[in-house]
Amino acid sequence: MSSYIQEKINLFQQQNKNRARLLINCPDQPGIVATVSKFLYEHNANIIESNQYSADPEGGEFFIRIEFEAPDLKTKAKQLEEDFQSIAQEFSMDWKFTYVDNIKKMAIFVSREPHCLLELLWEWQSGDLMADISLVISNHETSREMVENLGIPYYYIPANKDIRAEVEKKQLKLLEDYQIDVIVLARYMQILTPEFVEVHKHRIINIHHSFLPAFIGANPYERAYNRGVKLIGATSHYVTNDLDEGPIIDQDISRVDHRDNAADMKKIGQSVERSVLARAIKWHLEDRIIVHGNKTIVF
Amino acid sequence: MSSYIQEKINLFQQQNKNRARLLINCPDQPGIVATVSKFLYEHNANIIESNQYSADPEGGEFFIRIEFEAPDLKTKAKQLEEDFQSIAQEFSMDWKFTYVDNIKKMAIFVSREPHCLLELLWEWQSGDLMADISLVISNHETSREMVENLGIPYYYIPANKDIRAEVEKKQLKLLEDYQIDVIVLARYMQILTPEFVEVHKHRIINIHHSFLPAFIGANPYERAYNRGVKLIGATSHYVTNDLDEGPIIDQDISRVDHRDNAADMKKIGQSVERSVLARAIKWHLEDRIIVHGNKTIVF
Amino acid sequence: MSSYIQEKINLFQQQNKNRARLLINCPDQPGIVATVSKFLYEHNANIIESNQYSADPEGGEFFIRIEFEAPDLKTKAKQLEEDFQSIAQEFSMDWKFTYVDNIKKMAIFVSREPHCLLELLWEWQSGDLMADISLVISNHETSREMVENLGIPYYYIPANKDIRAEVEKKQLKLLEDYQIDVIVLARYMQILTPEFVEVHKHRIINIHHSFLPAFIGANPYERAYNRGVKLIGATSHYVTNDLDEGPIIDQDISRVDHRDNAADMKKIGQSVERSVLARAIKWHLEDRIIVHGNKTIVF
Amino acid sequence: MSSYIQEKINLFQQQNKNRARLLINCPDQPGIVATVSKFLYEHNANIIESNQYSADPEGGEFFIRIEFEAPDLKTKAKQLEEDFQSIAQEFSMDWKFTYVDNIKKMAIFVSREPHCLLELLWEWQSGDLMADISLVISNHETSREMVENLGIPYYYIPANKDIRAEVEKKQLKLLEDYQIDVIVLARYMQILTPEFVEVHKHRIINIHHSFLPAFIGANPYERAYNRGVKLIGATSHYVTNDLDEGPIIDQDISRVDHRDNAADMKKIGQSVERSVLARAIKWHLEDRIIVHGNKTIVF
Repeated sequence: MSSYIQEKINLFQQQNKNRARLLINCPDQPGIVATVSKFLYEHNANIIESNQYSADPEGGEFFIRIEFEAPDLKTKAKQLEEDFQSIAQEFSMDWKFTYVDNIKKMAIFVSREPHCLLELLWEWQSGDLMADISLVISNHETSREMVENLGIPYYYIPANKDIRAEVEKKQLKLLEDYQIDVIVLARYMQILTPEFVEVHKHRIINIHHSFLPAFIGANPYERAYNRGVKLIGATSHYVTNDLDEGPIIDQDISRVDHRDNAADMKKIGQSVERSVLARAIKWHLEDRIIVHGNKTIVF
Repeated sequence: MSSYIQEKINLFQQQNKNRARLLINCPDQPGIVATVSKFLYEHNANIIESNQYSADPEGGEFFIRIEFEAPDLKTKAKQLEEDFQSIAQEFSMDWKFTYVDNIKKMAIFVSREPHCLLELLWEWQSGDLMADISLVISNHETSREMVENLGIPYYYIPANKDIRAEVEKKQLKLLEDYQIDVIVLARYMQILTPEFVEVHKHRIINIHHSFLPAFIGANPYERAYNRGVKLIGATSHYVTNDLDEGPIIDQDISRVDHRDNAADMKKIGQSVERSVLARAIKWHLEDRIIVHGNKTIVF
Repeated sequence: MSSYIQEKINLFQQQNKNRARLLINCPDQPGIVATVSKFLYEHNANIIESNQYSADPEGGEFFIRIEFEAPDLKTKAKQLEEDFQSIAQEFSMDWKFTYVDNIKKMAIFVSREPHCLLELLWEWQSGDLMADISLVISNHETSREMVENLGIPYYYIPANKDIRAEVEKKQLKLLEDYQIDVIVLARYMQILTPEFVEVHKHRIINIHHSFLPAFIGANPYERAYNRGVKLIGATSHYVTNDLDEGPIIDQDISRVDHRDNAADMKKIGQSVERSVLARAIKWHLEDRIIVHGNKTIVF
Repeated sequence: MSSYIQEKINLFQQQNKNRARLLINCPDQPGIVATVSKFLYEHNANIIESNQYSADPEGGEFFIRIEFEAPDLKTKAKQLEEDFQSIAQEFSMDWKFTYVDNIKKMAIFVSREPHCLLELLWEWQSGDLMADISLVISNHETSREMVENLGIPYYYIPANKDIRAEVEKKQLKLLEDYQIDVIVLARYMQILTPEFVEVHKHRIINIHHSFLPAFIGANPYERAYNRGVKLIGATSHYVTNDLDEGPIIDQDISRVDHRDNAADMKKIGQSVERSVLARAIKWHLEDRIIVHGNKTIVF
């Protein structure tokens, strides 16, 4: 990694060394907020931001994300988590604490078209995408130069559906070696097997080049052109075993008209893809997304 | 019709008595624009606005819409159209002249939910929808009062799929009696038969409450909610025999998030439906739309 | 008021008889959320929605809005408010409880152009604007018919800057007689005196037909046209003594281009005005807005 | 320039060697379109796209942009332009032919913040910004590496208001040496003198980080934050002698809320700046903009 970016990361970690996030979902019931906020107060934690949502006020699921600061957080984290166990048990919570200075390790998968990769590298260089981009994996050599120029390892692994098993084996090995936390499919045009997806459940973010559920599958721009739509879109979502059916994180669209042919739509759409993917990744990095069934709560 | 609106229409007709539009599509070939513009020049017509489009510069279809003014247009219109015949023949044109002061007669079909009807009546009252709303046909009594208050006849014709034939017979009779030019399905929740559609081809505008081709058919908001989309949309299109498959005129979307349930999405979506439908109708009234295959050119 | 709307209001009140909101702002300090949520929990209140914001995590102002339900709220409200006093004192809170079934009484002021008034009446009829529109005051007769048709009293009070004092006296008398909670200037083209504004501080919502702070004052569309802007906008804000300088509630824009003259911009802009004003009013009615200095927090 | 980009440019030039644009403005009068289209037809030119606009149908200014193809254009261009002279004279036209394979030479000026420069380099690399980026001039060293990596010369010229004259002398010399056609101020935070502007009239494109005319001058994000706006914007415009008062090419906005401080607004705004500037430049490169008074017609 270039020293310029390393410096930005160091500064960020320094500034956030006492900052953490608590994410909870559990059956809705009275007293959750009172109990959790009392707990944090008693542990000297100052709440910076808090978001909550009840799927159904009358007996549904409850979700909350709290970002807080506490002095000497590093030395107290372990105790904090231990102390929280009894509350978690009482309310049957799914929960986790994450620590903001614990920068997530990211792998980017890309095929031939570099626009989404470029956007992520751009945001990363400018300090807006606070991740450790540990490696790029591609089935093409196209983007090697721009990736290596930034000091990021680039792995060329040819791929097609006939050699899927051995390809994924190599990829999974790399992800393990680099201890990857989040995988971004930045227009990686290969389908992943259920085995791969299972290993990294809710940690693989894909960008699909249509406003799902319209135009699931291949060639969405061409099909959008043939249908004569007046809007084209892009969708970022977590990858599941059902193609383009995973929990949607974000979507956006751009206006097109009769003058735009399929190639124009593709160009216009690439700009939407870039921003929708970047936004989803940032929310994921900031632990703003809770997956619930096949939907996302984005705080 | 109330005298207030009649006055607006009269003024509009007076202001536009010398204004017409010429719409053409034909195989693309050199010399079309030169020939047509020479023709208009020689007939003393001043071009106010002109839009053209070639589906494929190398031998595809050519489309043009010209709005022009000519002194004493009313007395010269017949001659103009006759003189144009030889050009039309030479270039194998589909063509028509329309005269701006020839206000189109509109029928609005509505079921129980009045939001789209209300929008159209609103735009109409404020002079922004220059049509003669000749009648409203509904399978419910809900909107009678607000329609009749504006001096528009309201026909209650109960409808369901078992009595479709006789219902459409009554409707077609009314459309004929009133010499209707354009039919708006302002959330009319009944399917029209191929026979009905054939009689009024490219003259029936529907609003579908999703961004087509996503959520074709019934209950799109509920299905959008279940899919966890982050955008909901609406689509205005000409009605064809294939449900929700006709040429799209306009689409738009609104952002939603995890807090919005199906009922919220419906409310948010109604606002999108209103504006998308009103826009499509205005373009139709101004002869801005050319249907080509299953697409629209909107000038 | 028509019985149709009265029914909607009655139903809404019935559904929300146990629902209330608590709005607080106070100096930020540890323990606020813990204390307030414990208080609500102990009073059997179930939190439905909660939003908070700290202007500056290190010692700034803290804001929270909590919507909750409690059984038999009506009989307990007084006690609840009394019990809360000690907490309020401890944290130096500005605070209020509001009760959702306590429908706010609204007066609408309008001049000659009815588009904003019409939008509000439309939203009101469809049950999306939950207020008691008690009266309309206008310096023109233009909108009398449509207002009285809905059973709303219409007061015609001619106004100009020379008779401002006596005009406002009449208006203030009416507002008092009707016990008005919120005043909407739905394109009321008269300036209010500081005396008037003082009486109804943070209760007067205006719509200005530009994206403030661009084009403060008169004729914004004409000035926008002359400047050659590519976007026109609208701004809803609370009225203060400084013309068009009050706390902004919401803004939106629409795209225009070189073909749009000042009249076109006005038409396009009216649609923006309608939605921006309606949105602001709904947020106010739902007690979602806290004014802080010259800004708004919108929860 | 890297060979990768050079290849893209070569291909583009090859594909467009017979393509040209004709831009005209002149007093509106009958017969312009007829005459010009006849002229092109007689010169074997096939019209690909044509856009026209009359500022005022009754005796105002007329504008037209025609993109056409003609076989062997290169050998016929001179004759074409000569033949056009008599038409131009007859109608008192301002006019020019431009040839699409004649790639424009561009200079980019930048200060410390690289986001707009990066966007342009990105679009350029992906072949979407068809220009010859001949050099980058900056008063900082920040962006040298990324610019030189792409094979573009980088000139560091320290600048401040005390040494403006000599700085501009150096800059103008470079612009002359490189035969620059268009200058982009990609967040170049120095004011240019009238002398500089005069030399490159309507060839200097600036991005201002507000929706003009709001927040003219310095620190717009901070002032937007202080005013409590709910939208922030960006404006691309041609530079004139009046600061931020030149003809606007494009504008766009992004939504913000009370949680966004001035630094957040700046980050959100940078994304708007990037797209608004890139769009304006593309339109300029495609000869889509005609400056008329202090406005632009964008075809």
